[in-house]
This record gives sequence, C-alpha cells and structure tokens, in this order.
Amino acid sequence: MMNSAKSFAPLFRVDASLGQSLQEQIRRRVIEAIAADIFPPGRKLPSSRKLANVLGVSRNTVFLAYQQLIAEGHLEARERSGIFIAETTAPGRGMVRVAGRETGHDKVEAVRFLRGVRPHSQSYKCPPNWQKYRFPFIEGRYDKTLFPTAEWREASRLALAVNEVEEWSLDNGEVDDPALIEEIRTKLLPRRGIRAGSDELLVTVGEQQAFFLVAQLFADAKARICLEEPGLPDLRELFSMYGARLQHQPVDDEGLVVDARLRGSDLVYVSPSRQRPTGVTMSMERRRALLEAAAAEDFLIIEDDFECEMNYLGDALPALRSLDEEGRVIYIASLSKVLAPGVRLGFMVAPAKIINEARRLRDLTTRRPSPNNQRAAAFFLSLGHYDAMLRRLRRVSEERLIALRDALNHYRPSSIAIAPVEGGTTYWVRGPDNLDARVLIRAAEARGILIEPADDWFVLPDGPKNMFRLGVTGLPAAEIRAGIETLSQVMRELDHADPAMTPAAEEGWLAAEDIRAMMSPATLLYKTVYGEPCTIILAADGSMSGRSGYGGEDQDSGRWWIEGDKWYRQWRNWAFGEALGFHIRIDGDRLSWLDDQGRAVDGAVLSREPRDTPIQTGPKTKT
Amino acid sequence: MMNSAKSFAPLFRVDASLGQSLQEQIRRRVIEAIAADIFPPGRKLPSSRKLANVLGVSRNTVFLAYQQLIAEGHLEARERSGIFIAETTAPGRGMVRVAGRETGHDKVEAVRFLRGVRPHSQSYKCPPNWQKYRFPFIEGRYDKTLFPTAEWREASRLALAVNEVEEWSLDNGEVDDPALIEEIRTKLLPRRGIRAGSDELLVTVGEQQAFFLVAQLFADAKARICLEEPGLPDLRELFSMYGARLQHQPVDDEGLVVDARLRGSDLVYVSPSRQRPTGVTMSMERRRALLEAAAAEDFLIIEDDFECEMNYLGDALPALRSLDEEGRVIYIASLSKVLAPGVRLGFMVAPAKIINEARRLRDLTTRRPSPNNQRAAAFFLSLGHYDAMLRRLRRVSEERLIALRDALNHYRPSSIAIAPVEGGTTYWVRGPDNLDARVLIRAAEARGILIEPADDWFVLPDGPKNMFRLGVTGLPAAEIRAGIETLSQVMRELDHADPAMTPAAEEGWLAAEDIRAMMSPATLLYKTVYGEPCTIILAADGSMSGRSGYGGEDQDSGRWWIEGDKWYRQWRNWAFGEALGFHIRIDGDRLSWLDDQGRAVDGAVLSREPRDTPIQTGPKTKT
Repeated sequence: MMNSAKSFAPLFRVDASLGQSLQEQIRRRVIEAIAADIFPPGRKLPSSRKLANVLGVSRNTVFLAYQQLIAEGHLEARERSGIFIAETTAPGRGMVRVAGRETGHDKVEAVRFLRGVRPHSQSYKCPPNWQKYRFPFIEGRYDKTLFPTAEWREASRLALAVNEVEEWSLDNGEVDDPALIEEIRTKLLPRRGIRAGSDELLVTVGEQQAFFLVAQLFADAKARICLEEPGLPDLRELFSMYGARLQHQPVDDEGLVVDARLRGSDLVYVSPSRQRPTGVTMSMERRRALLEAAAAEDFLIIEDDFECEMNYLGDALPALRSLDEEGRVIYIASLSKVLAPGVRLGFMVAPAKIINEARRLRDLTTRRPSPNNQRAAAFFLSLGHYDAMLRRLRRVSEERLIALRDALNHYRPSSIAIAPVEGGTTYWVRGPDNLDARVLIRAAEARGILIEPADDWFVLPDGPKNMFRLGVTGLPAAEIRAGIETLSQVMRELDHADPAMTPAAEEGWLAAEDIRAMMSPATLLYKTVYGEPCTIILAADGSMSGRSGYGGEDQDSGRWWIEGDKWYRQWRNWAFGEALGFHIRIDGDRLSWLDDQGRAVDGAVLSREPRDTPIQTGPKTKT
Repeated sequence: MMNSAKSFAPLFRVDASLGQSLQEQIRRRVIEAIAADIFPPGRKLPSSRKLANVLGVSRNTVFLAYQQLIAEGHLEARERSGIFIAETTAPGRGMVRVAGRETGHDKVEAVRFLRGVRPHSQSYKCPPNWQKYRFPFIEGRYDKTLFPTAEWREASRLALAVNEVEEWSLDNGEVDDPALIEEIRTKLLPRRGIRAGSDELLVTVGEQQAFFLVAQLFADAKARICLEEPGLPDLRELFSMYGARLQHQPVDDEGLVVDARLRGSDLVYVSPSRQRPTGVTMSMERRRALLEAAAAEDFLIIEDDFECEMNYLGDALPALRSLDEEGRVIYIASLSKVLAPGVRLGFMVAPAKIINEARRLRDLTTRRPSPNNQRAAAFFLSLGHYDAMLRRLRRVSEERLIALRDALNHYRPSSIAIAPVEGGTTYWVRGPDNLDARVLIRAAEARGILIEPADDWFVLPDGPKNMFRLGVTGLPAAEIRAGIETLSQVMRELDHADPAMTPAAEEGWLAAEDIRAMMSPATLLYKTVYGEPCTIILAADGSMSGRSGYGGEDQDSGRWWIEGDKWYRQWRNWAFGEALGFHIRIDGDRLSWLDDQGRAVDGAVLSREPRDTPIQTGPKTKT
C-alpha cells in the first residue's frame, strides 16, 4: 500500500514550466531519492502507467525516464514483477548532487539562531550499543535477562483489552491514569511510610522529568540550590540551566553533611536511601538533623528515592517525606529501576499546590506520560509483578555485587574507595595515584570493558582523576570475574606504558630463607577490598587459615609454600581457589606482596603477638 | 503479597521512647491510615502474631490494639478469614486529625519557593470526563470508536515478542528506536516530499515536546518570535515563558499574511496544512512568499504539520520543508492525530546540529519517549495500519463535518465564521453580536454540550467574544444534529434571558395575503451556512427548487405554503426534510425569516430579475 503510485506523487513533483523536460525531472527525482536513501535497494516503483496517471503526464514520459534509469543501473526491470530500485550499488549512488536542498547540506547555519537556554555539559556517555560489549560495568544499564518480559507482557495484554483501550485512549487532558495513581498511593507509598492524596501525586516521564519540573519551577537567578558533592551531573546542569546559584555540599559516610553551609538555601537536594553516586545510606540521625535544619533555616528538600527498594542488605530507613511534619519534602521516585528503562515512568509527591504547578508545566512541555503505559504499569503493580521483580532484582544484584567484591579483592585489593556500602549495585574503585581514569576508560573500551569515570560526579576542583565506578546491572555474575581480571590487566599495561612509574625491580625483595623465617608461623592483619578486617594465620606446616568480617563470620583455609624467591598461597575458596605467587618486602611490621615488576599488589601488617584463639576451619560462609 | 505483614511495617512504625503506649500508637496509625484513605474498606490486615513479629512488640500489644479498633468499628473480625478494615463507615472515618503531617495540611506554604519560570495562562480546559457528555464538540478529543484498537493491539503484541522486548528494553541512551526512525524517514516523510537523514530526525513525547524543545532552545529576551493570530495559546505561553518578544501576525484566507511585519523576526511559526485554529490551508503562492521572506529577512520557520494528512477535500500541498532550498525550516508533526492521544509520539525534522541540541535537552528533561511505544508505533506503520487508519479518519471526519454543516445550516444559518474550509474537523461559529461565548459554554455544559471559546486563540484585544469552535472528533455523526439543535435552544434561551435584546414582536410582519403576493412566484438569493451561494425558486403552484454551491452542484426540491400569517417550507432532503414556518418581514429587497419572538432566523435577497434557466430537479448530490 505504501507502494501505491499516489504515495510517490509528492516525491515526483514535476513542473512543466521549468526549463527541464518532464522526463528529465522524473529521472532526477528518482536519482535524488536514491542518493538520499529514501528509496532503499529492492524497493518497487509504481508502473509507468500508474505513475503517469498520478502525475498527469503521458505514459511515454515516465516510460522513457524509467528506461534511462535502467540503462544507468539505478533501476532494475524484473520479468513479470515490475521496476525496482537496483540491488547493486550503481556508480554514483549516494554521490549525486541534488538541485534543491540536499540532506545535511543546508546553506544556512541554523545553530546561530539558538540563543535560548541550552545544556552545555559533556559528561561521559556510554556507547549506545553498550550491550555489544562483553563487560559493560555501567550502572543502570540492564542486561536483557533482567527485564521482566513475561510479566510486562501480561500487564500490557491486560491493558490492551478492548474496554481498557477505550478508557486510556480517550484524552482526559492533564489527568493521570487513576488506576496507576491508586496503585502508587495505596501500595508503593505506604511502604515508605508516605501518605498522599491523589492531588499530591504526579506521574512523570521517568524521574528525570520530575527533576526538570522542579528545576524550572524553583530555580531563578536568586534561588540558591544545594546539591550533593559528589552528585548527579545532570542535576547540576538542570539547575544551572535555569540560572540557580549552586552550593555543593559534601557527602560523608552518613550521607549529606548537615551543617551551617546549608544556611541560605532555598532547596536542598538529597538522595538519602542510597546516595547518588556513592551509594551511602543516610543515617537516621542525619535525616532528623536535615529536617530540623529545613525548619530552622526555612528551605525545602527534594528527596530522590530512586533506589529505595534496593537495600537488600538491611531494612530501608523511612523516607524523609514520611518523617516530614511540615510539608517541606518533595519526594521523587522512579518506576524504571524495576520496570527497566524501556518503560519510562516516575512520579513525584508534593503539596497539592506544587503538584498543580508541575502538572501545568508538564502539560505545556510534553502533555501526559503515555496513558497506555500508565495503565500497563498499574496492572504490573496490581498483579504483584513489581514486588516479584523487586525480589528478583535484589537477589540478582546481591549475587553480582558479591562477585564484584570477590573479584576486586583478588585482582585489585584495597581498591574500593567508599566502603562499606550496603546493597546497591555499584562500587567506587580507586586506581593508582597516577591513573587517569579517562585514559583507562578508552583502553578498557578497546578490550570490551565499559566503566564510568568518577570525576564527572564531582564539581569541586579536587575531583579524583584516578577513580571510576563499576556497576553490575549490565552483566551476569558469571562474567564479572573475567571482566575484572581483564580490567586489571589493562591497568597494569597502562602502568607499564609510563616507564617513569615503574619501580626498580628486585630492590629489597626477601630471599627464600628470609621469607620462611618470617612466615612460619605468622599472623597477618589484613583489610579486604571492601574494607573489612581479615586475619590470616600461617602455620609452620604450610597450612593457613583466614577469618574476615567484623564478626569473623567468613572463614577459609588453605596452604602456603615457597618456590624460588617467591611466596605462594592457595585458599580453598577465597580468591577463586587459585594459587598465586608474590615477592615479599618488609618495611618495619608492614609486609608487601609484590608482582614480578616489583609493584606492591597488596599488603598486610605482620603481628608479632601470638594469637590466643585458634581459628576453626570449616565450611565457607557468605560475608 | 502486598498484604504481607512486612509491607505494613513502615506504616506501623512505633517507638517505645515516645509518651504513648505501643498499643495506642498502633491504634492511632491504623486510624490515620483509614482517615487518609490508605486502607480502603475491606482491606485485610496482617494477623496480630505476624504484625507483632515484624514490629518487634509482644503479640498481646497488637491483639489489644486490634480489639479496641474492632470495638470502635474501624476494623471487622471475620470468622476464619482474619481482620479487615470495616466496610461500613465508622463514625469519625475520614474525620480523624493526625498527630503528624496530614495529607493536605502542610504547615509550610511551599508555593512561595516557586520563583522559576512557570506558566500562567488560564485558557479553557474541557472537563477531564468529557466523554460522559452527550455532545462533546471538542476538537482533538477522540470518541472511543476512533481508536484503532485491533490494529494497535496487533502492533503492541508484535513489539512484545521476546526478541523485540530484548531490543527495546535495553537502555540505549539518547538514541531513538531505529525501526521507528526508518518508518518515518522512508514512508511518512517522502509523502510530504521531505528527505531527512536519520541524524535530522528526533522522536518526541507528542508534538508538544517538540514545541517545548524549540521554545527553550531558541527563545531568550532578545529573540523575536512571530506567531499566528489567531493561534495556539500554548505556543504563546511556551515562547513567552522563556522570555521571547512575540509578534502576532494575522491569518487570512490564504494563511499567514506575509508582509513587512515579519521583518526582524528570528523565528516564524506557521501551520500551513491547516492553520491552527482556523483550518485555513496556506496557498502555494503564500508558501513561496514566506520562504523568500525567510531568505531575504534571515529568519527560520517552524512548520507545524499536525493535520497534514487530513486534507480529504483536496490534495495536500507540499510541505514548506520540501520546498526549502536553504535549510531554514524546522518541521514538526504528530503521530497522535492517527494513533490517538493515548499514545504520545511526535517528531521533528531539522538540520543535524539543531537535532543534536534538541536531543541533549530532551535527554536532560525527560530522557527518551518510551522505547516500547516507539517500537509498537514502528510496527503500526510498517503493517500499513497508519494508512488504513488515516483513510478511515478521513472518511469519518468528512461524514461528521457534513453532518455539522447541515445542522448549522438548519439551526444556525449564516453562523460559520471562517469559510470555506476544506476538510478538517472543525468549524468556527459566530453567535449573535451580544453573545458572550463564555456564558454560552457554561449554559451548554449544563445541557451536555461541550464547546470551546474562540477568544483564547486571539491575543490582540479585538478577539471576538461571540465566537466559538465546534469540533467533530469526539462524537458520532448521528449525534451531531441533536447536539446542534440543543445548542441552538440554549442560545435562544440565553437571548431570552436578556429582555433588552428581545425585539418588539409582530412589528412589520407581513400578513398572509402580502406573503402570497410577494412569493408566487419569486427567486430568493441566499447564502448557505458554509458561505456558498444558493438560489431558491418559488413557483405559484406551491412547488419550489433550490440549487447551491459555486457550480450549482447541490440541488433539491420541495413545497411551500401559508398557514395563518406564517410562511412554511419543506425540502425533500435539505434541512433534514422537515417542515418549518416563519413570519416574514421585508426591508427593501431584503427578506427576513422571523421566529415567533420576532428574531431574524435567516434572510435572503428577493430577486426581481426573472431567471432565464429553469432549475432541474433531480437526485440530491453531495456538496
């Protein structure tokens, strides 16, 4: 039907008053359309009779134009089928200059008219085809095994029932789907301790639209907005786009620091459930302090509860909005963490007057989030799929995060920069001081590894250049070890590439007999990659045992030996049960394990105190 | 699963350190949740044992709290089922004051923090439940028979195939669905004569988002933006929100007037296919003039092609973008006219650098339009459903618009304000000079009729207060006559309500014998409601014939007679074939038909010239 002659008419517009013959005009239009790739190879053209009818020209005119195009190789005549765009690339294909406006060859530099408010930042964007990479350690990009395909299909099918379509396909103006509003209001929000009337709730095109609405409604040149440092680059961009003065408030192990620097703020953004990007959960004391400061200093709070449901290692603390006695908290959350980014829905909770204003701005800038998706999401929630998916995501994330932790512990000990983070899906990793994470990112990408630089998240000049972030949403647990092993190789190769940084090898290495004297027996006090204490006891008979975690709940045993001037160890479970050999150096009571290039891979403190409690060896337990 | 005890835990947060007993705290939390409507009647609560476990309190504490709530009527215990929120409204339900933050009772007036850029206009919004009204003459609201339910379901089901979900559920960042881009690029755009590379195309959340992106990117306090007068209120709002200086350029029968007033513009908005809101199609001469002016005066053009496909009464003229030799046209269109507003997709075509900027702003403010809908829309197009739906919409719209025209001709002759409009789905109607359309809208709403005021579309002070718009997308053809009849009644009643406006009855009415002398025979020159000439010939034998349209192509015959002092007529087909009687008044050669209150219902010119060609009576043909 798209091949009907009439549908081609606008392309073949011919004008008898022009200098060119009608036949020539038709010929040129076809060539232009091929050049501009509007006619793909193999596309059928209307018959000369039909096209002549539509254009109001003689059949012979079209026939002769077609004949010439066939002779030139642009078209092919197929016996008993018709005329087609040639499958083979004719000479000149894609090279034709067009009389009129050619795609991408505008005479006018239209960008000089852009003088409104527009974004400027150039923060890291992972490649759109990230899923073609073997090791996409990109937070928030979900590998295809995570999308709840069957469940979403069921919800969508229900939303496609005739009576459902009749409801959501009607344009109700600015009103959100009442079914979705009720699911959010009576199921999701109560779990966070939040009550909201339906006039205090707005559905958005993902949480990003909620941020935009807040930014445009609240920010002007006089507004002072406090953001987290480190924090989301897009939030800085949004608020500064509308002219606000930004205050960058540091984050510590308890979350956003609450102190006198918040004074004078109009709006304070905070991600208490899991700070973005560090993953720190704001303590209860800090939450109360922030609410008290909001009342004392008279500011509003934007609570970003993006990952509220992902606290699988501990119970979620109540949302700020549920603790808020005064109505100072604007609560923003996403359904996309669970529905995956393929379905763009989020929501905000705020006083009804604020919601009113946000609704009007949403209407003016996008109208409503697609009603069909709103209805399907309502079914997804009411069928309990959201909760099932949440449980699954928690389980999968936990498995993957542990795999990442174990791999880092093995290949990049002491590299986790912010610890301990409970739950979540990311680790911040610190490389050697001289590492430029941007250089590493490019080198890693060439080896199939995607990682994110950390410096994008910092706005203050001392943003760490040697840090990057690893996320586990994009690849299965089974791939994580190989990914980290490859990444570690890339890092070592980069180190090599800078000869000035290579320490003199063999300097201070212990000989075999020195190692034996020192190590049998010995107690090594060690910190795991995720910052927990670990005690390793080496016995003179070549056996060893280890206990890690604050409660010593993770235990393993193994053996150690000496070959040449290197010390070898092999755990039963830890470090993937692999044998690994190091050179040894001693500086006071500080022991370093060195690789063949003399670089310190890891280290421990040699305890001279005899241990009073023997370590049990037994089955491994999870940390 | 949502009823699991754990999911209730945040709501039941209790704190032993507070003054109240734990039992009392639980009791109050339940009452608050009922009052705030978080617990709907009939909802099951967790057993006292389970809830006690989760809260870490004794089972007796929960048991006693439940018992008291049952005694108070808040809860019901059902034999062998459990504890439920009472179905009957207990005293105090919905009336309970809450200790902490109550829904809608915020202590802080948060709106005072809103000092960013926000919309202000209060243009007419039709009620969200418009489909409950019997006669919703609201343009762009589609009655449920119009949504292509079966076709959209097929497209959605295909997009829900496992391999499709795997593709669109992956987050590809800012990139649109390649399948949809290809369908638009190779099928929709060529019909409008437009070529575009995939880097010159951006999918948007309906065309409204495209307008927003352009407004924010191009408008600042120095930018001069030219809009149509009358024009879309939301466009005025959008551009002025970002500070632009607006020029309101009039529209005539050929579309936007191109003259010296365009000088100095940076951006000129135009809706050439069907001007919004008048429905006028821009002539080819005017199109060329506008493009020449753009080159001469150096401005860009925003081409709004919303209704490009709805020109069912004539062939569509080429889009400005297809005639644009310089790359000055930003083309914006919607898929929602055919997909209906339930699926929010639009797109824009512009030079690649502009698309780049728009993509970045789209990313920052909403991310992408939902990928699942993009894929489903791609299937909808590739299956040919878009074209089938378009044909259907054209057929239905034509039928409805003719029904509206006939009804107006019968009940409100000479009322169409802008004519002739070819195709489209609306008519602008002019009421009596003293009509306040806002008053009429309220009165009509009470009778089940929704109409839109025209003055919202005008920004200049002489915007007509007595005009309104009637659209036919929202109700079937069979309902249109009854709707216009009722509307006409409401208008007459409003006229009554103002006694000063009631003309003296019976003044100058002709008596029966005067009517007979004047009317047998007579030729009446008349204009139909849609502005076409109509000639009516009355014969002495009581027969009559009529011919209307510029080519006289619509013909009918009937009879006329006199009863009392009133003149009656009845057409075979015209005016629904109904008999209708009027009083007659003559002023020079001007004849007026009057109702019983003496109001002129319609009029004609009495021709003294004998007609030389007799009118054939024959089967009625459509205008």
